[in-house]
Amino acid sequence: MSRTGRRPGTPETRKAILLAARRAFGERGYEAATFRSIAEDVGVDPALVVHYFGSKQELFAAALDWPIRPADIFGGLETSNIAEMAEMIVRRYLSMLDQPQVRDAIIAMVRSAVSNEQAARMLREFVTGEILTLLGQMTNAADAQLRASVVASQLVGIAMLRHVVRLHALAEATTDEIAALVAPAIAGYLQ
Amino acid sequence: MSRTGRRPGTPETRKAILLAARRAFGERGYEAATFRSIAEDVGVDPALVVHYFGSKQELFAAALDWPIRPADIFGGLETSNIAEMAEMIVRRYLSMLDQPQVRDAIIAMVRSAVSNEQAARMLREFVTGEILTLLGQMTNAADAQLRASVVASQLVGIAMLRHVVRLHALAEATTDEIAALVAPAIAGYLQ
Repeated sequence: MSRTGRRPGTPETRKAILLAARRAFGERGYEAATFRSIAEDVGVDPALVVHYFGSKQELFAAALDWPIRPADIFGGLETSNIAEMAEMIVRRYLSMLDQPQVRDAIIAMVRSAVSNEQAARMLREFVTGEILTLLGQMTNAADAQLRASVVASQLVGIAMLRHVVRLHALAEATTDEIAALVAPAIAGYLQ
Repeated sequence: MSRTGRRPGTPETRKAILLAARRAFGERGYEAATFRSIAEDVGVDPALVVHYFGSKQELFAAALDWPIRPADIFGGLETSNIAEMAEMIVRRYLSMLDQPQVRDAIIAMVRSAVSNEQAARMLREFVTGEILTLLGQMTNAADAQLRASVVASQLVGIAMLRHVVRLHALAEATTDEIAALVAPAIAGYLQ
């Protein structure tokens, strides 16, 4: 491949592909972000992208996996006080959304999910397997999965209206102001 | 225009254009749904679409305006009981989402908003002008706009996870089950 003048595969190349993929999925959506266009962005042969990631789904998962660690938000909540747990969840989530690369990844996921059934399925599987499992453990209610899903819906809605639609009041609000309103609702869902 | 064999403009044509536009914005997103492609779907001259709607933004607004009447959800709540108001809002919203053409319009709006800044602005203006105004009147709190925005975020999140991502527990839940969980949270936001 070096004969083509393109960059050969190194750990740095893999990272560069992931960065380019994250950007491409975010800016162009799941359908339009092709192996070829991502390879071009990085300056490598498309075959190298295939070599590293196999399929577009795997590249999507790898590209979006890193910044969103559900355990960073929903894990290690060493308290039995639901109000405290809910407040920590909201604060951790909002501070994660304040990181541009995390926010971009979440928006990329939403963008892909609304335009592509395959991406919607991936997001569904990711949320069900990684997030609802953690959230569901926080409540003993019979409808734990529904409650966990409603918590997720509140968090997704905040990302949408704060960072995508950018409703003025929500985009300008501080973490404290949002947490004061939303944490009691989340606590109610997890009761 | 009749010489081209295409349909001339009638009130029915206008309706057909709106239907096609709603479908096009939903299926292809704001960017890809062109005047030309929508005119082709209906079998009319693109100039007729321009004649009726002027700009793509106006067509977008007209196409998505009809099924979403904020007053149908947030208006005419003749009660001072916040818990009852919240429950009515949730029930009306869920039953609106159960209508495929309304659901499609909302998903089309979200899809366009996440992929296009112009559409995000339109949605922002629509929600701020039409929905937050109604919701904000329900609370006397100093942060009424933030509270109204958080209510909207909960409702948007439910549409996303129930109808787009289709998390199993939320997609399968009945209106009663969701209202029982979500109405108290909405009431808390509006207090």
